[in-house]
Amino acid sequence: MPPAPNESRAFAGEVLGRFVAASDWSDIPPALRHEAKRSILNHLGCALGVARDPAVTTALRIMAAFAGAPVATVVGQGTKLDPMSAAFVNAITSNLLDYDDTHLATVIHPTAPVAPSLFALAEQRGFSGATVLHAFLLGAEVECRIGNAVSPGHYARGWHITSTCGVFGAAAGCARLLGLSAEQTWHALGIAASQSAGLVENLPTAAKNVGVGNAARHGLLAALLAEQGYEAAPAAIEGPLGWARAMGDAPDLAAITEGLGSRWEIARNTYKPYPAGIVFHAVIDACLRLRKQLGAPAEGIIGVTVAGDALLLARGDRAVRNERDARVSIHHSAALGFVRGRAGVAEFEMPAVTDPALSAFRAKVTAALDESLPRGAARVTVRLADGREVDATVTAPRGSLENPLADREIEAKVRDNAAIGGFSSRCEEQIAAVWSLEEAPDVARLMRLLA
Amino acid sequence: MPPAPNESRAFAGEVLGRFVAASDWSDIPPALRHEAKRSILNHLGCALGVARDPAVTTALRIMAAFAGAPVATVVGQGTKLDPMSAAFVNAITSNLLDYDDTHLATVIHPTAPVAPSLFALAEQRGFSGATVLHAFLLGAEVECRIGNAVSPGHYARGWHITSTCGVFGAAAGCARLLGLSAEQTWHALGIAASQSAGLVENLPTAAKNVGVGNAARHGLLAALLAEQGYEAAPAAIEGPLGWARAMGDAPDLAAITEGLGSRWEIARNTYKPYPAGIVFHAVIDACLRLRKQLGAPAEGIIGVTVAGDALLLARGDRAVRNERDARVSIHHSAALGFVRGRAGVAEFEMPAVTDPALSAFRAKVTAALDESLPRGAARVTVRLADGREVDATVTAPRGSLENPLADREIEAKVRDNAAIGGFSSRCEEQIAAVWSLEEAPDVARLMRLLA
Repeated sequence: MPPAPNESRAFAGEVLGRFVAASDWSDIPPALRHEAKRSILNHLGCALGVARDPAVTTALRIMAAFAGAPVATVVGQGTKLDPMSAAFVNAITSNLLDYDDTHLATVIHPTAPVAPSLFALAEQRGFSGATVLHAFLLGAEVECRIGNAVSPGHYARGWHITSTCGVFGAAAGCARLLGLSAEQTWHALGIAASQSAGLVENLPTAAKNVGVGNAARHGLLAALLAEQGYEAAPAAIEGPLGWARAMGDAPDLAAITEGLGSRWEIARNTYKPYPAGIVFHAVIDACLRLRKQLGAPAEGIIGVTVAGDALLLARGDRAVRNERDARVSIHHSAALGFVRGRAGVAEFEMPAVTDPALSAFRAKVTAALDESLPRGAARVTVRLADGREVDATVTAPRGSLENPLADREIEAKVRDNAAIGGFSSRCEEQIAAVWSLEEAPDVARLMRLLA
Repeated sequence: MPPAPNESRAFAGEVLGRFVAASDWSDIPPALRHEAKRSILNHLGCALGVARDPAVTTALRIMAAFAGAPVATVVGQGTKLDPMSAAFVNAITSNLLDYDDTHLATVIHPTAPVAPSLFALAEQRGFSGATVLHAFLLGAEVECRIGNAVSPGHYARGWHITSTCGVFGAAAGCARLLGLSAEQTWHALGIAASQSAGLVENLPTAAKNVGVGNAARHGLLAALLAEQGYEAAPAAIEGPLGWARAMGDAPDLAAITEGLGSRWEIARNTYKPYPAGIVFHAVIDACLRLRKQLGAPAEGIIGVTVAGDALLLARGDRAVRNERDARVSIHHSAALGFVRGRAGVAEFEMPAVTDPALSAFRAKVTAALDESLPRGAARVTVRLADGREVDATVTAPRGSLENPLADREIEAKVRDNAAIGGFSSRCEEQIAAVWSLEEAPDVARLMRLLA
């Protein structure tokens, strides 16, 4: 959709509402359609892996006691909920370990707050796979563009951007699914603004999950309300007493509207190969490379120095007492690379945290500041018993934009997660169903496979 | 509860959690118990008046399609919903016209976000009237104290404080009803922080209602999650990346904790006699006084000048095209005082807006700035056909803290609202049931009367 002549003077929600309502599936290039499927496959895999986590089963139990007609599948559970409740639980599940996708410019996890409400609504009303993929692309686009407009100040100030911007994406995607007009979609985005919440302070706790779950649920609620005539202020996003300014930002409105429909944010989505903080991926990759190169057992190593920038050291130079520490530890990342030669979900759980071999290796690791290394890079130097020193530097770890996961690597991640959740028997069918989602007349079969 | 010796170094949520969990009903003075009943009576009356408003029936229709077991009454409707959904709709209803109560120091409407979740939970689980009143007092206290800590910057920056602080009140009240420990209540408040949302930019629209409804629903959700083991960050309210700072404030923590249990914010609650913006109440009162004094029909008046401070003029010097304009119009307020001699709900609806007598009188009214008048005051000067000029100044209008509504005036307001909603036949029983709530073994009878 080419911008109208006076586009620069239009409201942000107005431009986005027109874009979402007018977008034509036949204009979406195959590469973007494929990226949407990669995002959804990765998202569902993450959800399968933690289906039995207490944070998930607790949320499910509470919602089930208040939920309506059970028409929407909860991934990895033997139960359905009403679409709003299912969206809440599924968003929590996908994002629980932050193992899902990352839009690096904003650090938004784009899919968790957007896809669950779309699948829930599609399952209830029988929308086709292509319709869901299209709504997902539009929702993720709105979410990440609004995020771009307030980054990096927004997150730095304490807003959990996956939740605070995710609600706009869910609203936009649901508005599209429901066939709302451009003006109704504009209202849905404004209603979403009044429901945007979530705090960085709470990220180490389950309160994080509530924000992500609400983002999914509230996007759907915003679209349903707008469909029935609820309205919002024209400048709910950028007005003087609106969303961006209340949250502390002078929004960069051009970041929301420029190139809309020609440049797509989902093309910048990335997928984690390891369930660890993203800055630790270069550490793991460097250690895996050295392990392969040395062919040596971990015992031959007497010391390891991991060098990185200030962010890596600030986040990762810590004692490892539990799973949460392990996922943001330089020492644990290095130990996994050398001792286990892999860093899947099991490698960050309590048996790995307390594994004597890993614990002993963590003690050999020293963190060192090297500000010459770019953000997200790591240089690992190994001292061997025979006196040799070997090092490896990784600046574009697996899964980064420069070194993206191949489809088969995402599939392998899904298999890993499915095995942990106990869903291996159906995994190949699940994967195939996502790859063929564009041709599916509805989402019923995929949802059955995920139940 | 006397503060512990190291109270000043405790977390805000920790102090509030201890306060809520430890409070003893027998320590609550009778005057406060009575104020709680006044707040609830006023709240239910406001809800009855707008039970048929499209904003209410739309919210009800949407929630009903997704709601679970119908165990909680929706005020003024022939239907029940699950407690979370009922809390959402009832909070919207009570606050719809901003005719409900006002905590003037923060401009929070305290009861709408707090009471609905308590009544819904009590109806489901059979809690007594006194238990609900106690939980309400504690919830309103937490809500208003957190509001005090961030006022006036919070609202001025664009946060709809009734929603953003209301969620804490609902969480605290529900935590008390559920019998949560001090620590669980602390977590519930932290989970509430991650759900706090609502924008001033959206106040002229139905998106406002969504924020208020969510505050009620989310407080209940926060308490239910904390009951089941969900946790939040210790400093979710005041931490460096927590609620207050993300929202732009350096919170005044003393305002949260000082005098807790001895000085109660509900004692500062006020109730509107007119469904108009609070600064217009002095205008209406002055005009009613002059009408009585003159004994003259409005036709004898050739001109009226209403003087007030900058806020009155900024908000109220406007054309009147619809109900929303009428509720914040100097001219309409004055016309009602002189022409109708009353200013109830019907006086701000479309038939009044288009009433030729009121319209003609509005044209006789001039607004004038007088910065010597305090906020919330008005001086009205009348020029009569016989050449006389008479004036009246009101600084403490009916309903203000200095001139509070008597119980019988709140009852009259409830009757007025009930009549508009079509509930007159049960009104005396409803009023009596609220006054005797403290002795009620459960809330079932009151809820039946309100259905």
